[in-house]
Amino acid sequence: MAKLLRVNMTDLSVRFEEVPEKYALLGGRGLTSSIIYDEVPPLCHPLGPDNKLIIAPGIVSGTKAPTSGRTSFGGKSPLTGGIKESNAGGLSSQKIARLGIKAIIVEGQPREKDRFYVLKVDKDGARLLPADHLKGKGMYETCDLLWKEHGEGVAIIGIGPAGEMRMAAAGICVNDMENTAGRYAGRGGLGAVMGSKGLKAIVIDDRGGPGVEIKNPELFERGIKKLTQASLTHDVTKKGGALNTYGTNVLVNIMNEAGGYPTRNFSSGRFELASQISGETKAEIIHKRNGEGMTGHPCHPGCIIQCSDRWANPDGTFKVSVMEYESVWALGANCGIGDLDKIADLIWLCNDIGVDTIEMGDTLAVAMEAGLLAFGDADTAIRLLNEEVRHGTPLGRILGNGCVFTGRAFGVTRVPAVKGQGMPAYEPRAVKGIGVTYATSTMGADHTAGYTIAPEILGVGGKADPFAVQKADLSRAFQATTAFIDSTGYCLFDAFCVLDIPEGFEGMVESCAGVLGVNWTTQDAIRLGYEIIRKERLFNEAAGFTKAHDRLPDFMTKEPLPPHNTVFDVPPEELDAVYDFSKWPKEVVGEVAA
Amino acid sequence: MAKLLRVNMTDLSVRFEEVPEKYALLGGRGLTSSIIYDEVPPLCHPLGPDNKLIIAPGIVSGTKAPTSGRTSFGGKSPLTGGIKESNAGGLSSQKIARLGIKAIIVEGQPREKDRFYVLKVDKDGARLLPADHLKGKGMYETCDLLWKEHGEGVAIIGIGPAGEMRMAAAGICVNDMENTAGRYAGRGGLGAVMGSKGLKAIVIDDRGGPGVEIKNPELFERGIKKLTQASLTHDVTKKGGALNTYGTNVLVNIMNEAGGYPTRNFSSGRFELASQISGETKAEIIHKRNGEGMTGHPCHPGCIIQCSDRWANPDGTFKVSVMEYESVWALGANCGIGDLDKIADLIWLCNDIGVDTIEMGDTLAVAMEAGLLAFGDADTAIRLLNEEVRHGTPLGRILGNGCVFTGRAFGVTRVPAVKGQGMPAYEPRAVKGIGVTYATSTMGADHTAGYTIAPEILGVGGKADPFAVQKADLSRAFQATTAFIDSTGYCLFDAFCVLDIPEGFEGMVESCAGVLGVNWTTQDAIRLGYEIIRKERLFNEAAGFTKAHDRLPDFMTKEPLPPHNTVFDVPPEELDAVYDFSKWPKEVVGEVAA
Repeated sequence: MAKLLRVNMTDLSVRFEEVPEKYALLGGRGLTSSIIYDEVPPLCHPLGPDNKLIIAPGIVSGTKAPTSGRTSFGGKSPLTGGIKESNAGGLSSQKIARLGIKAIIVEGQPREKDRFYVLKVDKDGARLLPADHLKGKGMYETCDLLWKEHGEGVAIIGIGPAGEMRMAAAGICVNDMENTAGRYAGRGGLGAVMGSKGLKAIVIDDRGGPGVEIKNPELFERGIKKLTQASLTHDVTKKGGALNTYGTNVLVNIMNEAGGYPTRNFSSGRFELASQISGETKAEIIHKRNGEGMTGHPCHPGCIIQCSDRWANPDGTFKVSVMEYESVWALGANCGIGDLDKIADLIWLCNDIGVDTIEMGDTLAVAMEAGLLAFGDADTAIRLLNEEVRHGTPLGRILGNGCVFTGRAFGVTRVPAVKGQGMPAYEPRAVKGIGVTYATSTMGADHTAGYTIAPEILGVGGKADPFAVQKADLSRAFQATTAFIDSTGYCLFDAFCVLDIPEGFEGMVESCAGVLGVNWTTQDAIRLGYEIIRKERLFNEAAGFTKAHDRLPDFMTKEPLPPHNTVFDVPPEELDAVYDFSKWPKEVVGEVAA
Repeated sequence: MAKLLRVNMTDLSVRFEEVPEKYALLGGRGLTSSIIYDEVPPLCHPLGPDNKLIIAPGIVSGTKAPTSGRTSFGGKSPLTGGIKESNAGGLSSQKIARLGIKAIIVEGQPREKDRFYVLKVDKDGARLLPADHLKGKGMYETCDLLWKEHGEGVAIIGIGPAGEMRMAAAGICVNDMENTAGRYAGRGGLGAVMGSKGLKAIVIDDRGGPGVEIKNPELFERGIKKLTQASLTHDVTKKGGALNTYGTNVLVNIMNEAGGYPTRNFSSGRFELASQISGETKAEIIHKRNGEGMTGHPCHPGCIIQCSDRWANPDGTFKVSVMEYESVWALGANCGIGDLDKIADLIWLCNDIGVDTIEMGDTLAVAMEAGLLAFGDADTAIRLLNEEVRHGTPLGRILGNGCVFTGRAFGVTRVPAVKGQGMPAYEPRAVKGIGVTYATSTMGADHTAGYTIAPEILGVGGKADPFAVQKADLSRAFQATTAFIDSTGYCLFDAFCVLDIPEGFEGMVESCAGVLGVNWTTQDAIRLGYEIIRKERLFNEAAGFTKAHDRLPDFMTKEPLPPHNTVFDVPPEELDAVYDFSKWPKEVVGEVAA
């Protein structure tokens, strides 16, 4: 039977606990959000002893289910002040699951300030080791040292100096198969929560672990077969498809064409240098410098989509993984930077220092708006990250706390954020549905929380007019479905195929049901999704959030965005309808478990 | 008939308007909060063009009513995100009123960034003048230059460099009769709002103005006679009484004795150096250095309480006015500083740079907690203000944005603030009622919003046990009555005598009724107070505030405070009762005017 691992950082003790009945069918985000809902006081200080960091693999993680290596990280966010789940690929999910651990709960806070520890978890149990030698080190060196100490192949979850300094833009890093630091649960400042617990890293060695029990192997096998079939068939997810060939950055040209590619702190929807940083250009350069195998790369074992890549320096040596769409946008177009090598430098720095690339790109652009540096000035941006943020100078602490914080420090009012979290790479004035998700999601401005870009721009999962403002039902449905997928361990990119191929979604649900030994329908899965977002919403309400926080920043409702010259004009009532529980579809809404 | 003066900073136009019927009986805070409620979108950015800065003298300001020179400043606060009224003494209130102006409404925002203007108001009207020569200048020099330009004796309302830089701790300064910068509407960052409007200063020359119309002179005369009688009789307010002899700083020994004098970032309720900075010591030093007349000084013409003072350097030259209890505490005990000359240096710097002394004291103490400087290190504190905050360096911008901002920059969780605003000089763990006011006031942590210290510590207005937790009714009653007094133009210190002497309160109300030509009872006055705080609360709710924001910081409910070793244990339900409209006393609650 899987266990919960509870780590108390106040008395430095670890304890394995039985999984309470109510958590038996949960995993990933469903589990992290439920534990937060049950155990974290909504009004606690996010960096105080009462907040908790919850780490949970998904329902099928650790099995042979394809593309199922996501680890969910949860806590009360120091960036938003609300509930937060952020998930990442890399090695950790499968290994935690195979050790028979359903979630790791890190609570309390060391009495000694600025002491750091490593949590080692293996078949023999768990223990806290001193980590004084890792203090202040970047994530690349941290990963190197931990593989030397604990053996090649172990999974590493860690924070860079930004997390140690409890900066609200700090993320949590997971290493990948090459032990590269670059898979990030970046959003919401959970790295600062980990830092506030005095935890520099978690090392997971699953050798000799019991593995994941599959209660109904037949159902499970049927499920993964259907899901695999869908994934290998769909144009977006198949081998040689868009994601596999160009990575997520394939979206640059598409979003730029749609006029929804935020440029220079969200002052235009089109970037004149887009072709220099597109997925196509990126793949071409990687192939030229580094060889063919360096795109279409998996971020964790068993991924069949393989959208990652390994960027190379001009001399062909490895630089950084991964040149993700969001990261290239944030540190590229949004800062007016059109040079992939400079962007790669900035991504490397974010990965090493341990800050979210999206938040940092938004932040640098706000700093540009404030006049601290010019749009397009990559060299100063690099200096700011490497000298200021890394070392926690006063300016570094401003930037390291994100774009809202930076805007306030410098009196900038054009700050693209919701609930304190910077916006990702889709312009809500050009794609209204994603604006509804940004505004209303329990997570703050977050594209992954309800990716309506699929029907609005990509023609996946139906078609929706990006400029139409009636998007409450669409965004809500995406938010609920996403909450389910985030609970499975499956990569959200599986959504692309399951949105269009019903058997794919059936397969996804059956594979989960097979592991758990239940008879879930797809409707049951969606009901679970609604349960999760409802719980998250209730937590946020108790933490002080109201409809007033479900709004985009002032300037987006007033300042027309080129090239379409549209404002964000979704009516407040439409936004309010997303979390008006009375308007939720009766057939899929269950009661929130106690 | 009095007018509204509307100043549009976008097109740099000014316009006099008739006073709408609904504002006819309002003044001061009642008027600023009503105009905000009616005209400011609750979700606007506090530093954007949709916020407004409202300036209003009280109902009796500009008449011969004693001690009635308070000017109310209002807007959406950049510090709290909610509605804000902050009032100050000095010259402005009477002069605005005597020019026949009921309120000045400053709206819009200059299109050109970092251009500043002076608004000149006199009997011939109002106009905007360029203020490029004043940019970056401290308030002392600004006052000097403006008297040279516009004549001695004119009233000046202005901001220092902090307001120009839109720092959230920036206050609005009013000069006094000696043209000293030191009367501050300090709280809530309204100086940043003024800065965001491109307004460096307002000059008011009332010579030749029409004066204030008194509709029922007989009633007015009767009223001020009764109020004067009460003021001259009560031990706190009379000539030679506590306030007149020692100034507000008379409270040091009292609060220290009560164990409620917050020390070293609210880590103790008693300061071992209190006697060095007490009101008694202060008065003794002033008399020795500067002569007898330099305590018991009025802050505006016609004040009969005269609680101000003029601190001198060791050589007898004038240093700063005023050594207020809150300022001496904030930059003294709360920072572990026990030297009045150093404290005077810090107060002078706050006045010159244009930041709130309370917020800045809280901020420096949080910086001390973060390890940036040691508790008690006055010289570094002086350097931080003079070199960092004044010049808007990155560290200066952190500090200039207040204690919550500074806490977040440096990962400090012990931050004494409510709704973003730092706490004043009364420990809520030792005096529970004031904690209820801090928690629930529409203004954030603010002692003046509902000064339950009077019955809890001073035995004024009855007696209440400071440790008793049932304080909702007490705090609510004080909050409503205060909202009325803040609307009259009378100094809140008049409350001391009117709390104990019923005829005094009758007189206060009658003097207002006399000016307005109405027949108000004291109950009508209190009803008006309830109307005001209800409107403010509704604005805050629309701006996103909930009960969750009516709480003291986490650490105060857990960390026992020496010497009584008590935590803040007022139950949440008791806090929630303050603004539960259904629990408001039926007899004094009216409808909110549309």
